[in-house]
Amino acid sequence: MRLTILGCYSATPRTFTNPTSQVLEIRNHLFLIDCGEGTQVQLRKYKVKFSRIKHIFISHLHGDHFFGLPGLISTFRLLGRENELHIYGPKGIKEAVTLLLKLGDSWTNYPLIFHELESKSSQLLLEDDVISVHTIPLDHRVYTNGFLFKEKPAPRKLDITAVTRHKIDRSQFNNIKNGANGLLENGDEIDNVDLTHNPPTPKSYAFCSDTAYNETILPLISKVDVLYHESTFLESESKLCKKTKHATAKQAASIAKKAEVGSLILGHYSTRYKSIELFKEEAMEVFPDVELADDGKSFEI
Amino acid sequence: MRLTILGCYSATPRTFTNPTSQVLEIRNHLFLIDCGEGTQVQLRKYKVKFSRIKHIFISHLHGDHFFGLPGLISTFRLLGRENELHIYGPKGIKEAVTLLLKLGDSWTNYPLIFHELESKSSQLLLEDDVISVHTIPLDHRVYTNGFLFKEKPAPRKLDITAVTRHKIDRSQFNNIKNGANGLLENGDEIDNVDLTHNPPTPKSYAFCSDTAYNETILPLISKVDVLYHESTFLESESKLCKKTKHATAKQAASIAKKAEVGSLILGHYSTRYKSIELFKEEAMEVFPDVELADDGKSFEI
Repeated sequence: MRLTILGCYSATPRTFTNPTSQVLEIRNHLFLIDCGEGTQVQLRKYKVKFSRIKHIFISHLHGDHFFGLPGLISTFRLLGRENELHIYGPKGIKEAVTLLLKLGDSWTNYPLIFHELESKSSQLLLEDDVISVHTIPLDHRVYTNGFLFKEKPAPRKLDITAVTRHKIDRSQFNNIKNGANGLLENGDEIDNVDLTHNPPTPKSYAFCSDTAYNETILPLISKVDVLYHESTFLESESKLCKKTKHATAKQAASIAKKAEVGSLILGHYSTRYKSIELFKEEAMEVFPDVELADDGKSFEI
Repeated sequence: MRLTILGCYSATPRTFTNPTSQVLEIRNHLFLIDCGEGTQVQLRKYKVKFSRIKHIFISHLHGDHFFGLPGLISTFRLLGRENELHIYGPKGIKEAVTLLLKLGDSWTNYPLIFHELESKSSQLLLEDDVISVHTIPLDHRVYTNGFLFKEKPAPRKLDITAVTRHKIDRSQFNNIKNGANGLLENGDEIDNVDLTHNPPTPKSYAFCSDTAYNETILPLISKVDVLYHESTFLESESKLCKKTKHATAKQAASIAKKAEVGSLILGHYSTRYKSIELFKEEAMEVFPDVELADDGKSFEI
C-alpha cells in the first residue's frame, strides 16, 4: 500500500496548505479519500494517474472534505472518461452533485454511481480478491465515516528453484500459489511450503477524520498497520474540541495506543499553530510511532 | 478602476492555470466576477483584501466559473464576516449554494443575499453614486450574462489656490465640487470653472465570457474603455466555436473593433495552444489595442 497526502489541513484552502484529500494505492486499486477544493490540481501536481481512480470515499459533507468533488467529476468528463466512477458518501451527496451538473447542463458521459451512506454502524462498502473497505462511524458535528482498508492475503509466491528441481508442470502453478501441494508424475506429493515462499503480510489502513475522541472505534481499528487520525488541535485548545467535535494530538495518540496500531499519522491541523512539529511532540508523549502528514508526502504501508 | 485577473483559462484548473475569476476595484468597491475552483486561494496569493468584497457576479453555472463559490462563502463565515454578501447569478445558484451549506450544516452568520437572473434583456443590477452595473446577455450553451461596469462622474476637484485667493468659505466646498459657483461676501459670484479642475473621466469595463460571436451585444458595450472578451480558440479551430459556443481571438477583435472600445483584453484560453501570444497576434490583425489576460496580471483602466 502507498498513501499519498494531497491535503491535510483543516478549514480553508490556502496558498501552501490544502484541505483534506488522500490517494491510497493497493495493488491494482487507486482510491481517493475525501476531495477538498483544489484536489484535482493536487492530483496533477503530484502526478497521480487519476484516470485510474474508480472509487472515491467522502467522509462527510463539510466543504473542506468535498467541495473539490464536482470539479473533479466534471474534469473526468472533459478528459473523455468512459469507466464507471463510484462515489461513497453521506446521504445527500448524490443530490448535491446532480444539481450542480444539471445547472451547468453538464451530464457525465461515463457511469457515475453513488453509494449513499446513512448507517451508524460499520458497513462493508467494497470487497474483491485484493481488498475490503468498511466504514468507521465517527463522532463529528455532521454524519461522518472514516474508512478501513484491509488488504487480503496475496497468493503464495512460487519458489522457482524448487518447482524446477521437482519438475512440477506449469499447469499446477496457479493451484500451488493458492496453497495446493505439488503432484509428481509418480503420484507423490510435494508439500506446498517446500514449493512456495510466504506472500507479503496483508496490510491495513484506517482513515479517521473528522472526529472527536471516540473509543467506540477501537474494535474496528484494532491493530491496523497505519492509522490516520485527525488532530485539529493541541491539548492547550482541548476546550475547542468539545464544541467543534475535533480531537487533539494527544487524543489521537491515545486512540492509537489503545487500538495497538502499528503507527499513527496525524493530520487535519488547525493553521493557528506555528509548526506542525508541535503535534508530533504532543502525540509522542503517549505513543511512540508518530508521523506527520503533509501535503505531497507519501507513506509506504 | 483596477482589474486583477485571478484566473483566465478555460475548462479545468491546473497547477499553473486557473479557471475564470477577476477582481474589479472601483473607488470604494471591490467586485468579484466569476469564481472558479481555487478562487479563494488566488485571492490570498495576490493579497486581495477579500473581506471587502460585497458583490459577486457569476456569469453562468459551468463549473469553471462558479465551483469556487461555495468554498469562498464558507471561508467568509470562518473568518467571522458580518457584512452582507450579494450574489448575482443565473436562477438556480441560490438552490445550489443553499443545498451545499445545508448538507454541511454550515449556515452563514452574515446576510447572504441572492439576486437570481433569468432575463434575456440587459438589466440594471446595482447603482449608487459611484457605479452602475448592467448585465450583458451572452450567447453560450447555458444561460449566461456578461457584466458592464460604468463609473459615474466623480465630483469636480477644488482648485485650492483659487478658493484661497477668493477667500471662499469652507462651507461652500461641497456645493462647488458638485458644480455650484462660489459666492463672495459682497454677493459677487465666481464661476465654478475658475474654482475647480475637471475630475478624471469616468471609466467603463465590460466582461464578456463565455460567449459565441454575438453582435447583439454591440450597443451595450459601445465605446467602453476596456472590453474583456473570451477567446477560447484560434481561427484554426473555429469549427469548435459553433459546437461549444465559444469565440476565437479574431472574433473577439471584430467585436472590439465594431464596438469601438478603447482596448481589448483576451482570456479564457483553451490550454491546447503552446503560447497565448498566438491569441494576441491573431486579434491584432483586426484590432490594434490588444492585451492578454494572465493569472495574477493587473490592468489599470
